[in-house]
Amino acid sequence: MEDKNQFFSYEMDTDLALEAGECLTKSGRRAEGVAFEEEEAEGGMIHITKVTIRDQEGAKLMGKPMGQYITLESALMREENGMELCAHALAGYIRQLLPSQWKTVLAVGLGNRELTVDSLGPRVIDNLFMTHHREGEGLCGLAPGVMAQTGMETADIVKGVAGQTKPDVVIAVDALAARSASRLGTTIQLTDTGITPGSGVGNHRNSLTKESLGIPVIAIGVPMVIKAVNIAYDTLHAVLKVLNTEKAFEGACDAIRTFSPQEAHGLVEELLQPSLGDLCVTPKDIDELVYVMGKAVAEAINETIHHREIPGTRESRS
Amino acid sequence: MEDKNQFFSYEMDTDLALEAGECLTKSGRRAEGVAFEEEEAEGGMIHITKVTIRDQEGAKLMGKPMGQYITLESALMREENGMELCAHALAGYIRQLLPSQWKTVLAVGLGNRELTVDSLGPRVIDNLFMTHHREGEGLCGLAPGVMAQTGMETADIVKGVAGQTKPDVVIAVDALAARSASRLGTTIQLTDTGITPGSGVGNHRNSLTKESLGIPVIAIGVPMVIKAVNIAYDTLHAVLKVLNTEKAFEGACDAIRTFSPQEAHGLVEELLQPSLGDLCVTPKDIDELVYVMGKAVAEAINETIHHREIPGTRESRS
Amino acid sequence: MEDKNQFFSYEMDTDLALEAGECLTKSGRRAEGVAFEEEEAEGGMIHITKVTIRDQEGAKLMGKPMGQYITLESALMREENGMELCAHALAGYIRQLLPSQWKTVLAVGLGNRELTVDSLGPRVIDNLFMTHHREGEGLCGLAPGVMAQTGMETADIVKGVAGQTKPDVVIAVDALAARSASRLGTTIQLTDTGITPGSGVGNHRNSLTKESLGIPVIAIGVPMVIKAVNIAYDTLHAVLKVLNTEKAFEGACDAIRTFSPQEAHGLVEELLQPSLGDLCVTPKDIDELVYVMGKAVAEAINETIHHREIPGTRESRS
Amino acid sequence: MEDKNQFFSYEMDTDLALEAGECLTKSGRRAEGVAFEEEEAEGGMIHITKVTIRDQEGAKLMGKPMGQYITLESALMREENGMELCAHALAGYIRQLLPSQWKTVLAVGLGNRELTVDSLGPRVIDNLFMTHHREGEGLCGLAPGVMAQTGMETADIVKGVAGQTKPDVVIAVDALAARSASRLGTTIQLTDTGITPGSGVGNHRNSLTKESLGIPVIAIGVPMVIKAVNIAYDTLHAVLKVLNTEKAFEGACDAIRTFSPQEAHGLVEELLQPSLGDLCVTPKDIDELVYVMGKAVAEAINETIHHREIPGTRESRS
Repeated sequence: MEDKNQFFSYEMDTDLALEAGECLTKSGRRAEGVAFEEEEAEGGMIHITKVTIRDQEGAKLMGKPMGQYITLESALMREENGMELCAHALAGYIRQLLPSQWKTVLAVGLGNRELTVDSLGPRVIDNLFMTHHREGEGLCGLAPGVMAQTGMETADIVKGVAGQTKPDVVIAVDALAARSASRLGTTIQLTDTGITPGSGVGNHRNSLTKESLGIPVIAIGVPMVIKAVNIAYDTLHAVLKVLNTEKAFEGACDAIRTFSPQEAHGLVEELLQPSLGDLCVTPKDIDELVYVMGKAVAEAINETIHHREIPGTRESRS
Repeated sequence: MEDKNQFFSYEMDTDLALEAGECLTKSGRRAEGVAFEEEEAEGGMIHITKVTIRDQEGAKLMGKPMGQYITLESALMREENGMELCAHALAGYIRQLLPSQWKTVLAVGLGNRELTVDSLGPRVIDNLFMTHHREGEGLCGLAPGVMAQTGMETADIVKGVAGQTKPDVVIAVDALAARSASRLGTTIQLTDTGITPGSGVGNHRNSLTKESLGIPVIAIGVPMVIKAVNIAYDTLHAVLKVLNTEKAFEGACDAIRTFSPQEAHGLVEELLQPSLGDLCVTPKDIDELVYVMGKAVAEAINETIHHREIPGTRESRS
Repeated sequence: MEDKNQFFSYEMDTDLALEAGECLTKSGRRAEGVAFEEEEAEGGMIHITKVTIRDQEGAKLMGKPMGQYITLESALMREENGMELCAHALAGYIRQLLPSQWKTVLAVGLGNRELTVDSLGPRVIDNLFMTHHREGEGLCGLAPGVMAQTGMETADIVKGVAGQTKPDVVIAVDALAARSASRLGTTIQLTDTGITPGSGVGNHRNSLTKESLGIPVIAIGVPMVIKAVNIAYDTLHAVLKVLNTEKAFEGACDAIRTFSPQEAHGLVEELLQPSLGDLCVTPKDIDELVYVMGKAVAEAINETIHHREIPGTRESRS
Repeated sequence: MEDKNQFFSYEMDTDLALEAGECLTKSGRRAEGVAFEEEEAEGGMIHITKVTIRDQEGAKLMGKPMGQYITLESALMREENGMELCAHALAGYIRQLLPSQWKTVLAVGLGNRELTVDSLGPRVIDNLFMTHHREGEGLCGLAPGVMAQTGMETADIVKGVAGQTKPDVVIAVDALAARSASRLGTTIQLTDTGITPGSGVGNHRNSLTKESLGIPVIAIGVPMVIKAVNIAYDTLHAVLKVLNTEKAFEGACDAIRTFSPQEAHGLVEELLQPSLGDLCVTPKDIDELVYVMGKAVAEAINETIHHREIPGTRESRS
């Protein structure tokens, strides 16, 4: 059944490996190079999914480079005192991705401080406790700004600064675009693959990867928006699905069944894309969300870097 | 054909009388109590639509109180130097709605300064040039904040302040929710009906009307968001329309034609509403949009109030 | 010796009753209508001075209306985790000044949100937890802005709002000007006399008092600036004092002794006042100071209002 | 007369070469290596002083490196529409200091975005129109943040970025500390000597000079604060001067004349320094001042870089 196995390519248009993986699974494709593993923390209140892309075929299917993607999901992130628990859990996973030996960590807050939806990176930097200038090692970091603000490729700025400071690892923080509205304010992604072009809320970023910088790059991303056009795709998808399955529409659906995903997709593209292209979907209280998430990610990095002597705190909790 | 004449009630879920009017027209309903008038300004660069709701039946059909609604539409609002022209045109229309005799005007900036999408009102107040404290008449104003910030009904605060300052007219400024994405950054609505409950980006506001305050209330509103669920409705609408008209799908569409608007609407409601309810759709550069629109509306009010001795500037331009 | 007993009137140019009292004492004047009482909290870490002005003569000498002035001083306010203790102690004293029976409290944040040195009041309001809109009683509040922003007397706005909301007591928060640099970031004043014209960082405020509003007004003030001209006075004062007492200058000082305080004061006035009049002296990190103090005062009010059922918490600690 | 020629070393504690020069002149010292030149622009409304330090002796006397210092002074900077004229004049002088051939300019905004008094540099960067990312040459820039924010020497960040971007010249912008209150909001300094350690509102910065970076560094500085202790020195100075010259005090002043500058200085140091050390003196509306000056300096740089094809505009106006 060709139709059933096909999946919409737009569904892969997400910065979350978790969502790309779900889409892959749903499509029924075999993907031997992609492994999924799940675990829980804080007594089941935080759900962790580890997606590992092991080979080039998996990378192609997933639309993401080979490596490990750890996603923390929790309703706690929306609760007043839940954020601390999430930050602590995140710290444990950052520690897993750090090289076994390191002296200096360079944190990079990507994005545009002036656009709320894209300001997560700079706000994380604002909340980090830097120590490198005093101790000659430890944490240092900067929020380089975006290309329109600096006139320079962000990757060039980071490369230059890393050349002077010689960090052992870079931690890059960025706002992400997700596919599903339910990700906003509930999800944090961590990966050892660095930052790849085209991801993030802002566009056209260059790579920040081990290949481009010569040192490992851990990326922490938090979904802040979904693209407006995705709402349109989802609507259509939902309707087609209903038409194909619900008994109530059985009679009416012989025709629509001939309406292939590609045709539906093409329609949306033609009809809605132009006016939706520049729009993004956010919670009304995005300002609050950025504030809370910025503090949480910073707390996690601070805990990881400044208490590295304390091993195993996470393991005993997860 | 009942189905064809029916229109979706959700389509009326807009703060813009212009959009409600379009929807009414599209539905084919007769609405003798609703009059439309169009004009241009700045050599056709600004399009003005005046919707007048003359009787209670019109008010019921439109879902808005009786009165005059003037909408300025222009691509100039998105251009660097176009905003001044729009502000000037707006000033002319504010002047039309002002009482013929006035000494003191109280401007009220509704909304929440801390949420970008809802901060238009406070920002307009920030840019007004107040004179009442020096001259005993002229312009005064405040941004009362929203109920969660003050613990008080905004209407009560305005009532109290108006009781002390005794203005002849109130100008209330608010961020609006539109139906169509194309309204964002291109549209300003002006009305002599004041502010009615349920409108605006923030919810559950009380009335600020001539009835509740005892003096005329002019409201200036600027669409800042559309509700995410609207994108879903639009998608469905577009698809149904295509199915009904495009030759390419002719064969496939006999069935879908029996899929009534209500059924489609119900599907969306059931499938997407829960996850989309709290989300809003905005331009990615909403921060910039609020900044530009806040200055423009303030300039228009400043021009209206402080140069009232100069009559007829607008007429010669429109 | 008339000269020695004389004190400089400029020394009384402070918003802190504590400083005015010190100046009075130093001058050797008898002031039977002014009583001083000291106590400690948090194991001596917070020093509290209660100044009570009992009669009109005391009020005239102190340059402040009759009533009670409670000043909390503590180095804790400058320490990372010390602020909570100070907020808790402050809550206890606010409770002492509240009427024994109250249902609704109106908090008023005076000052200009846009000028850092004058933004304490608005920031406190930002951090309050309002309940009046939900419960019909409890806490409500607003930051009315300053006269240049609103075109209205702040007192008129408060009067109007109080007329609608009918609070039992007003708590007004304002940034103060102190005489001594050592007050910045270490001192909070609480008084039952309300706000009197000419006090605060911003000028020309009208009264917010029991007389003007008809209900008790508690004022919480935090010194944020000292006037630049005070530094000049202090210098002169210090030098004259040294000349009069230090042995090293004995020979040289016969002449300067004839240089009376008034003459010295006149000199400063003439030479430095013009260029210093608009300047204020602040810590370089005033932005941080306003942030910390704004949160602390808000915490104290929140604790006072929302946990009023818990009696005696403070007493057991002081 | 040794006493008369002596000048207070603290008087040299200013970031403005103009003030250091005035102090030198007042002291009566010969300084053959320091040349002064004055000119006017905008019909006398802008006063320009060029101080050139030609040799090492001059540098030692002035406490500043050899090079050219151009100071623009104008009351226009405080007027609503005057800033544009000042920005235009400044652009002309920046052009004089630029190398004759350049393709890429790197602008660096020094200082701390979070502290109003130290935020000029970052705000200038916010207002620059960057072109290097599109054209491969032209303007690029960044606000690196201060050491406590980044954990890195600012000079290292700039060095790293310059190593990638290969600019022909750096323009560094910084907030300065002046000696005299009359400089605040009226003065802009331009120099070809770059940034030297210890200057600026923030402390302990490393060099950004031709020596350290290998390319010319133009520095633009705007006085934003004066140190509080300077007010004390000025008071004493003013009093001593009066005692020495005014007839009224003639009899009393024989003694004080023996009170040498050093003794007076020592007194202030001992008595006032401790409590004044961390304080700075600013206009109450420093927030507004930073906003206006940030825009003006950015406009000047934008004009210089982006309209370089238009020669001689300034000359025809000055």
